[in-house]
Amino acid sequence: MANSQVIVEHIFLLVMVTLFSVLQNAFFAVKLEREGKSGCATSFDRVSCAVRNCMDAYPTFLAVMWCAGLCVSQAPAAFAGVLYLIVRQKYFVGYMGQTSQSTPGFVFGKRPIFFLILMCMVGILNYLLAYFFGRCYKAQLKTVTGLTASLLLIP
Amino acid sequence: MANSQVIVEHIFLLVMVTLFSVLQNAFFAVKLEREGKSGCATSFDRVSCAVRNCMDAYPTFLAVMWCAGLCVSQAPAAFAGVLYLIVRQKYFVGYMGQTSQSTPGFVFGKRPIFFLILMCMVGILNYLLAYFFGRCYKAQLKTVTGLTASLLLIP
Amino acid sequence: MANSQVIVEHIFLLVMVTLFSVLQNAFFAVKLEREGKSGCATSFDRVSCAVRNCMDAYPTFLAVMWCAGLCVSQAPAAFAGVLYLIVRQKYFVGYMGQTSQSTPGFVFGKRPIFFLILMCMVGILNYLLAYFFGRCYKAQLKTVTGLTASLLLIP
Repeated sequence: MANSQVIVEHIFLLVMVTLFSVLQNAFFAVKLEREGKSGCATSFDRVSCAVRNCMDAYPTFLAVMWCAGLCVSQAPAAFAGVLYLIVRQKYFVGYMGQTSQSTPGFVFGKRPIFFLILMCMVGILNYLLAYFFGRCYKAQLKTVTGLTASLLLIP
Repeated sequence: MANSQVIVEHIFLLVMVTLFSVLQNAFFAVKLEREGKSGCATSFDRVSCAVRNCMDAYPTFLAVMWCAGLCVSQAPAAFAGVLYLIVRQKYFVGYMGQTSQSTPGFVFGKRPIFFLILMCMVGILNYLLAYFFGRCYKAQLKTVTGLTASLLLIP
Repeated sequence: MANSQVIVEHIFLLVMVTLFSVLQNAFFAVKLEREGKSGCATSFDRVSCAVRNCMDAYPTFLAVMWCAGLCVSQAPAAFAGVLYLIVRQKYFVGYMGQTSQSTPGFVFGKRPIFFLILMCMVGILNYLLAYFFGRCYKAQLKTVTGLTASLLLIP
């Protein structure tokens, strides 16, 4: 039991972000269902397309966030994940509205995803360095990624 | 090696359910391929739509099941996962048939998914309680979720 | 920190393959975006269909690779994963080209996926044997899967 508690300690922020993303998915599905019942074909197509775009990128997002969280440190990864979810929400709401603010782009939230990929790479590089040369910069890495994550807030 | 055996002990039920779900995905793909060869456009569209609906919800299901299994206990999570797979099978077969039993809903298996989300939440809450107040209800939690899981069998 | 280093040791190859697959997904998305801007409807549909097929199979691939890697041994699983990514790249490039080499199949990379499923099954069987009969063939299993993985290279 103590062992399992240790595992949870390393991942509970990631689990929370995953949970939020799942609730967001459920929100999208409910919106889509309601549109389907309203009978308006063009607006259903619109929402359906938005949901599809969100869903296509979802496994990629989950994989990258978990890898970054496991390899380096969970707090910056979870922070980037939350930012991604906010961007996704904005994208979906913008897509749904019939005003001109709807974004046509296929990919969104490039910056958080890019940051997470970078975290993964740095984490693996650090592991290889530790393995081959016996140097471990994990503590410094955690500080640096924590600081860099706050840069994502700049619009 | 002993360490890796410990990891497998905590996840082997989840791995088994994941394996079943993958085999089910393969079954869906084979069905779709066969429909595509038969040349009937309407029936191909039908099956294609069913497969798409199943696949859209698949990453969400996997994420929730693994989070619930890692945070609380694997047996109830795997049980809810199996129930979800059975519901999905029923949905797919009903969709494929041309009789009136085909279900039009976008989302299915809401109950197992909802139960898994609840498990995640309770697990994280328990971890936070243990962290801030030093109280750990993990043993009781396992019993309660195990008992609650059996309630899912009620139709 | 030492504990987290141990975790990374068991999964760093899997993380690397996941990273490659994410970069490949990004490559697909960029290609799709460029096609969308070019304004040619048929070629956009073509690429969109290829991307969709790749994305539908993506969560299945990730789940199977991680399960196989965690249950048995990461090196063969990562190797099969790399092979799958190469097959996917070939499929996508072949689909994009307008020559007759485009493959119409829904499923591709059946062999690596099948190998990974087999690895999962053998790993769980080995765990159950160790649990019920106290026999553990993990060391032999690692050797055998490592050797078998090289058989995937035969075209």
